[in-house]
Amino acid sequence: MEGVEVKEKDVCVKMLAAPINPSDLNRIEGVYPVRPPLPAVGGYEGVGEVLSVGSAVKHLSPGDWVIPSPPSSGMWQTYTVKEEGVWHKISKDSPVEYAATITVNPLTSLRMLQDFVTLNSGDCIVQNGATSIVGQCIIQLARLRGIHSINIIRDRAGSDEAKEMLKRLGADEVFTESQLEVKNIKDLLTNLPEPALGFNCVGGNSASLVLKFLRHGGTMVTYGGMSKKPITVSTSSFIFKDLSLRGFWLQKLMNPDKVNESRNMIDHLLCLAREGKLKYEMELVSFDDFQSALDKSLGKLGSQPKQVLKF
Amino acid sequence: MEGVEVKEKDVCVKMLAAPINPSDLNRIEGVYPVRPPLPAVGGYEGVGEVLSVGSAVKHLSPGDWVIPSPPSSGMWQTYTVKEEGVWHKISKDSPVEYAATITVNPLTSLRMLQDFVTLNSGDCIVQNGATSIVGQCIIQLARLRGIHSINIIRDRAGSDEAKEMLKRLGADEVFTESQLEVKNIKDLLTNLPEPALGFNCVGGNSASLVLKFLRHGGTMVTYGGMSKKPITVSTSSFIFKDLSLRGFWLQKLMNPDKVNESRNMIDHLLCLAREGKLKYEMELVSFDDFQSALDKSLGKLGSQPKQVLKF
Repeated sequence: MEGVEVKEKDVCVKMLAAPINPSDLNRIEGVYPVRPPLPAVGGYEGVGEVLSVGSAVKHLSPGDWVIPSPPSSGMWQTYTVKEEGVWHKISKDSPVEYAATITVNPLTSLRMLQDFVTLNSGDCIVQNGATSIVGQCIIQLARLRGIHSINIIRDRAGSDEAKEMLKRLGADEVFTESQLEVKNIKDLLTNLPEPALGFNCVGGNSASLVLKFLRHGGTMVTYGGMSKKPITVSTSSFIFKDLSLRGFWLQKLMNPDKVNESRNMIDHLLCLAREGKLKYEMELVSFDDFQSALDKSLGKLGSQPKQVLKF
Repeated sequence: MEGVEVKEKDVCVKMLAAPINPSDLNRIEGVYPVRPPLPAVGGYEGVGEVLSVGSAVKHLSPGDWVIPSPPSSGMWQTYTVKEEGVWHKISKDSPVEYAATITVNPLTSLRMLQDFVTLNSGDCIVQNGATSIVGQCIIQLARLRGIHSINIIRDRAGSDEAKEMLKRLGADEVFTESQLEVKNIKDLLTNLPEPALGFNCVGGNSASLVLKFLRHGGTMVTYGGMSKKPITVSTSSFIFKDLSLRGFWLQKLMNPDKVNESRNMIDHLLCLAREGKLKYEMELVSFDDFQSALDKSLGKLGSQPKQVLKF
């Protein structure tokens, strides 16, 4: 902490835990369209305990647990100093690994279920990349509202186990991409309504499958492109099927009028996590093991749970 | 007219003129997703004079000029009998060829400029297929509202003349597709703001060019696919550039709450046509010359003006 001055509006936070998210790696790779001034510290979300506060800080005290909301850079360090307004105080009985990871993936899931199409109990959504944490959260958050989910996953070793896992979380249907190579994809929906909303984090053929499931007038929201392939759409999908294609980026929610709303949503999500109604797999690792956590996050060791660094 | 009974709510109309639209041909080809019961008479818009009315008809009298609004099938005939509610009475000083063609192409242009993005004077739109009648109407209707237009046309013999023609209508910029094979397409916009709204009736590369011109958060509306190629979009266009892709189909405006609004828009468009503020090239042909008019409409004789049949 030498050399860092805690100004009157600043709060010094001792970090407790912070995850390695794919977007953190993209930022370091320089492929993200927003870049911090260099040199910079990585990490964009996490949870910490307030160590000290500046003289003009009003709502935070030493010992409080806080997370940056909206997400803020430089979370991969032992101590972080940022203005009071950056920090959102949370309940200290939150599981530390959920507190550290709530502002990026689960908030993405909750906002995407809410910001594009008005869904009611009994409605249905469709998504690809369903085994991702965002995907798992979508299944659970939808289920809590009585919304059904159709889930698309890759064909790979272990896809049967993945199906079981997603069904335990509340997924109504889980298909591998190859199962969907049928003439009329909607014949597979025996007991579910056609979905009005779809989520795409893959692109390519997998995005086309989401589009096929959507009902007339439906909306597909793209929030990732894991296959690195573009999205291809027929003219008739727009004209005759009246589909809308949109995008979601958490960064867009940085404007102040969205911050309070998002913080309320975070409190709700942490409450669900405490009650065991929102679950996803993580591995808490010591910061000393950063290198192996990084390798796991980069996919060098096969499919691994999200790595959450403990400081 | 033998065998057709004029019921109490019916109106018998002697047709004056009706165009051959591409969508009429698509209906006959069976590639349109809505099909009339067979046998059917072609033609989906036109203008006629009321010949006789049923006893319960209240708002129309013999001699009135009427057009079907929303568009209605069976306009390629000398006499047409339909219920009063189908017909919209128009001013008899409307040029017959404009009255016959106002409900499909010009209404598409006006609605697309209005239904998706709120535009203000000084804003800008971008479109491909700009030489089509919809494209020409978009240029003129935008210009009347002080909205600039960037127009994309095919590379072909006569593209210089096409550019001149569009500029005379009020186009700010007209580019052929090959002119847009540059590193940064937006460097071409020296005096125009980035467009918030784009129109695509081509697909393929031409649609990608519309997307490139759009500003952050912009919307592209697809209303045709003349190249028969799909639309391909990068993941980052959705996530980082926040583009929205939508579709427009006039058929969607069939619901009753849209009918009055559309009829008011038609009156406005016909007023502009009478004042010479809305122009597009047409060829009035006798119904006796149907076969050559059909050949021209099918593109068998090169680029030709829209064929409007006189009865």
